[in-house]
Amino acid sequence: MTDFAATKALFHIPDGMIYLDGNSLGPLPKSAPARVARAMTEEWGEMLITGWNKAGWMAKATELGDRVAKLIGAEAGHVVMGDTLSIKVYQALASALEMRPERKVILSDSGNFPSDLYMAEGLIKSLGQGHELRIVAPEEIDAHITEEVAVTLITEVDYRTGRLHDMKALTAKAHSVGALTIWDLAHTAGATDVKLAEAGADFAVGCTYKYLNGGPGAPAFIYVAPAHADTVRPALSGWLGHEAPFAFDLGYRAGAGIERMRVGTPPILALASLDAALDAWEGVDMGDLRARSQELTQLFLQELERRCPMLTLASPRDPAQRGSQISFRFEQGYPAMQALIARGVIGDFRAPDIMRFGFTPLFVDANDVLRACDVIEEVMRGGLWDRPEYHARAAVT
Amino acid sequence: MTDFAATKALFHIPDGMIYLDGNSLGPLPKSAPARVARAMTEEWGEMLITGWNKAGWMAKATELGDRVAKLIGAEAGHVVMGDTLSIKVYQALASALEMRPERKVILSDSGNFPSDLYMAEGLIKSLGQGHELRIVAPEEIDAHITEEVAVTLITEVDYRTGRLHDMKALTAKAHSVGALTIWDLAHTAGATDVKLAEAGADFAVGCTYKYLNGGPGAPAFIYVAPAHADTVRPALSGWLGHEAPFAFDLGYRAGAGIERMRVGTPPILALASLDAALDAWEGVDMGDLRARSQELTQLFLQELERRCPMLTLASPRDPAQRGSQISFRFEQGYPAMQALIARGVIGDFRAPDIMRFGFTPLFVDANDVLRACDVIEEVMRGGLWDRPEYHARAAVT
Repeated sequence: MTDFAATKALFHIPDGMIYLDGNSLGPLPKSAPARVARAMTEEWGEMLITGWNKAGWMAKATELGDRVAKLIGAEAGHVVMGDTLSIKVYQALASALEMRPERKVILSDSGNFPSDLYMAEGLIKSLGQGHELRIVAPEEIDAHITEEVAVTLITEVDYRTGRLHDMKALTAKAHSVGALTIWDLAHTAGATDVKLAEAGADFAVGCTYKYLNGGPGAPAFIYVAPAHADTVRPALSGWLGHEAPFAFDLGYRAGAGIERMRVGTPPILALASLDAALDAWEGVDMGDLRARSQELTQLFLQELERRCPMLTLASPRDPAQRGSQISFRFEQGYPAMQALIARGVIGDFRAPDIMRFGFTPLFVDANDVLRACDVIEEVMRGGLWDRPEYHARAAVT
Repeated sequence: MTDFAATKALFHIPDGMIYLDGNSLGPLPKSAPARVARAMTEEWGEMLITGWNKAGWMAKATELGDRVAKLIGAEAGHVVMGDTLSIKVYQALASALEMRPERKVILSDSGNFPSDLYMAEGLIKSLGQGHELRIVAPEEIDAHITEEVAVTLITEVDYRTGRLHDMKALTAKAHSVGALTIWDLAHTAGATDVKLAEAGADFAVGCTYKYLNGGPGAPAFIYVAPAHADTVRPALSGWLGHEAPFAFDLGYRAGAGIERMRVGTPPILALASLDAALDAWEGVDMGDLRARSQELTQLFLQELERRCPMLTLASPRDPAQRGSQISFRFEQGYPAMQALIARGVIGDFRAPDIMRFGFTPLFVDANDVLRACDVIEEVMRGGLWDRPEYHARAAVT
């Protein structure tokens, strides 16, 4: 059995705070500052340029990729770190479209994170080849997977509602009509028991600053299935994806396998922080994680439905059909969330009316859930959110 | 007068090392570890998600962009940080090509850094619109700027030889035939007195881990001239370049000016390190920097030409025609450089036969140059490089 009390002790949560926003930005792993300090003073400071070899910097992108691979059910050697999630979406999509040149439809859903859709839109305009970004309701994806579709571009968990797509079934459906799949794991990597290889996913991408606790703006990752890894053309063909980066040839030759999805110089300080964060996952069984996550979300849901009838559930009621978050609709959700934050219960708000709460078993337990419910009940039943200062909008919500 | 003894005191150089590789990776600013530690413990650790507002994280990409703008003669509000240099090259090139849809030639030179050429090659293949990457000799660029050219893609200083292009003259020539210009400032930002606005450059991109000392894999920057900033279409249209990222609209609308060149979530830890590194530039006059750089390179060149006749100068002899580095050709350059590194003189090797030495006045002085020359003379005249351990190739050279 995974020891979640032990993992909880690895994170710094400020006194009195109940942090239910690990689905937006994970908390600081206690070991991360020292790890980054070491990378700065002992590696960068003392080794300087030789750190690329001596400190193993050049291999970090694939080394940490292998650590992430274990958490998402991917084959070793098929995940690499780098760039941001938006860039990785673009990279996967550009490659996938070339693999289906005769098809023009990218299928996505209205629950996808907007940046994924924006990147697709930008790529389509650049290509000028008549591609269409077809956006349907999340529950209609399956029906729209037809022989027109080149690739599906789906975030496994809807960032607003927490609704979970059936990766295995949709991938099988896509393959049955000759379409490819790109899975965005932003809200599932480290949150559910993702099984990329078992599902037969073609591409997957994700970020590491949410459930993986890598830090604000931590590097993204990309997965390419073994079947495609040595044949896919990297559209973002940077020098670190070259077969021989330090030969400095004028022409590009793609590197072997996942190496070709590397682009520019890897962000060593950010990778050091992520490296420390990934230590927390040693000894965590992803099946245990999923079970514990479902217990927590179920407890939260049952308590709040009983105590706060003014909140409307926006997440699926069946825990098997959602990720590791619970969302409620409430017309005054923005000031309500500000009132909660002022009282140390940190969730977040997503327009137009979603109050979102994330539950990550690595540092949230049942006691936290019950304490959060007490505060939420007090704020909601007392109408404590209806104060001018809670209505003032910040730049980032 | 700029006080270069004072700037030298801001950097950590290991005892006994003479570091002539700041053109590959700048050294650790002494203040950077504490700055990053603060971003981790006081900001990320205590503020968690609210750091995006409270710690001003969301504004860092443009704030630091403005600090870099001052060092490259750019208008305030026209530089933004993010991604890697390879991604920024792609972004500028994709935008520029759309501004000249009737033209199909991207003009570059064989002294350009390979990753820039690779990214162009990758983009051309994706577009499938018949673009041509025309690569000519560095000294022939001017003659090849014709009405066929959509955009020039030039690194201002040749990474191998240090040869400096005339940005102002080439930009004027490009504009006279209706072509656009993208300048890669990898080896000039923080190394010479770049004057983007005065030269009328259309786009510029650069990295911050060389002469700007941001750390291994530090974020890149992009400049878009005021004339294009509000009309250019961002091909990498990520959510942070959206007019209203937190409205979470399904459709993309480009943000105002340089904001539209932002893509994904900014790398906060890396930006904290860069922020500390940029403090070293307060009080540095870029004219003084250029003069001092020329003194140092000239001293090094004169000493070594006199002392080491086996070295063949690969850099321009005229200091006005080169950046802040001196390169020599030597057939056994690889083991020779290893022998120097073993003796604390750190330069680097670039295939096939280039021994490269960078001089950054912020932490290299005339005394360092003379001490380096003593070691180089000893190694070269004594043939001390001819030992098996110096011939063994490392992964990164």
